[in-house]
Amino acid sequence: MESIHIIKIGGNVIDNSENLYHFLQDFTGLDGYKILVHGGGKVATQLSEQLGLEAKLVDGRRITDIETLRVVTMVYGGLINKNIVAQLQRFGTNAIGLTGADGDFIRTKKRPVKTIDYGFVGDIDEQSINPQNISRLLEAGFTPVFCAITHDGDGQLLNTNADTIASALAVSLARLYEVTLVYCFEKRGVLHDINDEESIIRDIDPHKYEELKKEQIIHSGMLPKLDNAFAAISCGVKTVIIGRSDELGRVKNNEPFGTRLTDHI
Amino acid sequence: MESIHIIKIGGNVIDNSENLYHFLQDFTGLDGYKILVHGGGKVATQLSEQLGLEAKLVDGRRITDIETLRVVTMVYGGLINKNIVAQLQRFGTNAIGLTGADGDFIRTKKRPVKTIDYGFVGDIDEQSINPQNISRLLEAGFTPVFCAITHDGDGQLLNTNADTIASALAVSLARLYEVTLVYCFEKRGVLHDINDEESIIRDIDPHKYEELKKEQIIHSGMLPKLDNAFAAISCGVKTVIIGRSDELGRVKNNEPFGTRLTDHI
Repeated sequence: MESIHIIKIGGNVIDNSENLYHFLQDFTGLDGYKILVHGGGKVATQLSEQLGLEAKLVDGRRITDIETLRVVTMVYGGLINKNIVAQLQRFGTNAIGLTGADGDFIRTKKRPVKTIDYGFVGDIDEQSINPQNISRLLEAGFTPVFCAITHDGDGQLLNTNADTIASALAVSLARLYEVTLVYCFEKRGVLHDINDEESIIRDIDPHKYEELKKEQIIHSGMLPKLDNAFAAISCGVKTVIIGRSDELGRVKNNEPFGTRLTDHI
Repeated sequence: MESIHIIKIGGNVIDNSENLYHFLQDFTGLDGYKILVHGGGKVATQLSEQLGLEAKLVDGRRITDIETLRVVTMVYGGLINKNIVAQLQRFGTNAIGLTGADGDFIRTKKRPVKTIDYGFVGDIDEQSINPQNISRLLEAGFTPVFCAITHDGDGQLLNTNADTIASALAVSLARLYEVTLVYCFEKRGVLHDINDEESIIRDIDPHKYEELKKEQIIHSGMLPKLDNAFAAISCGVKTVIIGRSDELGRVKNNEPFGTRLTDHI
């Protein structure tokens, strides 16, 4: 089985052009197949403000109305995505920038209205991603760069969580490749002591995860991240790494990078 | 040699959602390989106005400053391109939305500053397009949808004329395919009498073109369009059609569509 890296970056990388520049260089340095998934960043909020749109929140949850969908399609699908692609091309990665509508790569269902109408938000399910379809693009020599927009197959674009896109891609492609899923966030990894960036826990398996939870070493904000990571592993993803984007270059040098989650340490 | 249609649409199709809807249905109905190239439309101008940007003109020529480049990257590369892709997917075309940066498909050179600095505008030359690169995407089963943005290979996105992109794609792909290049515009074709939409000249070859120019039947605005079309034909493009987007469906029915330009009638 060939290997693939699927790497998710968020606003903390995208909003800082120097961080982004170095990250994209390190991404280019990774061997084998790879996919980049990027979230939003401040630019969408700034553009919304410039256009006089108010952020719509219901019970503290963000709503994607039609105007917000236009803004994220412009900013995530256009401005951020295409600038990342142009930078990657500069470094020699044959990147191709995508939403889930392109190539029908990620088809989602508009979130049903229950107590809250989230608007134009798409939820991923088991049928959302056809791994053969993405494999054809990879094998034609292209490196996909996904923004956090999908479609419903009926002409409607939908806003979709970038973390979820990354893990769904990883699970889906695990049928064809040996997948390493990397979540870049603001810390160097899962830390023993949240105030000590040196206290990285290098390896966690499900058994150790249970222990760390019992000892309350893993704090509440990390729980959903790690739950999702272990869910991906239980669905066939080989490794999930949680780390800081500026340390991605360590992968190439076989140095320890972030916290590695696997089925067995 | 397999055949390919390369179709260029402009603002008159993009700005009218009903026209666009029908056009994309007809585009889906075309057999064989195909590529769509789209220009801008009013949305970019509207967004610029909303953001308080003034259109920059020097000697009547539009300048692409850095703010304008941001707007067109958002509108052409994001909003328009991805909505066209989502609609095409709905109709069953496996579209993939692109700038020239994606896949390194169209690499241009920033226009040199002579008397006017046009800003972030990219000019196409003979090295801009690698037909094998695009062919790999077509043969992997995808239908490219290009917006009018390219890159310089050094990380810079550049605004590029959509008509020129369409003809450069046609000339480049003529090495691998039998190419029909279709320019959609507001008239049904080249007209004997500009006020009579029934007076379509169905076929023109270089000899007839010279006659029509002598008789002053072809008016000044059409001259650059036809000059460019015959230049493409002299570089190996089989047929250029100039017609109205709502009549594209005639191609499938083998009915006459627009004005056909060929090497020999």
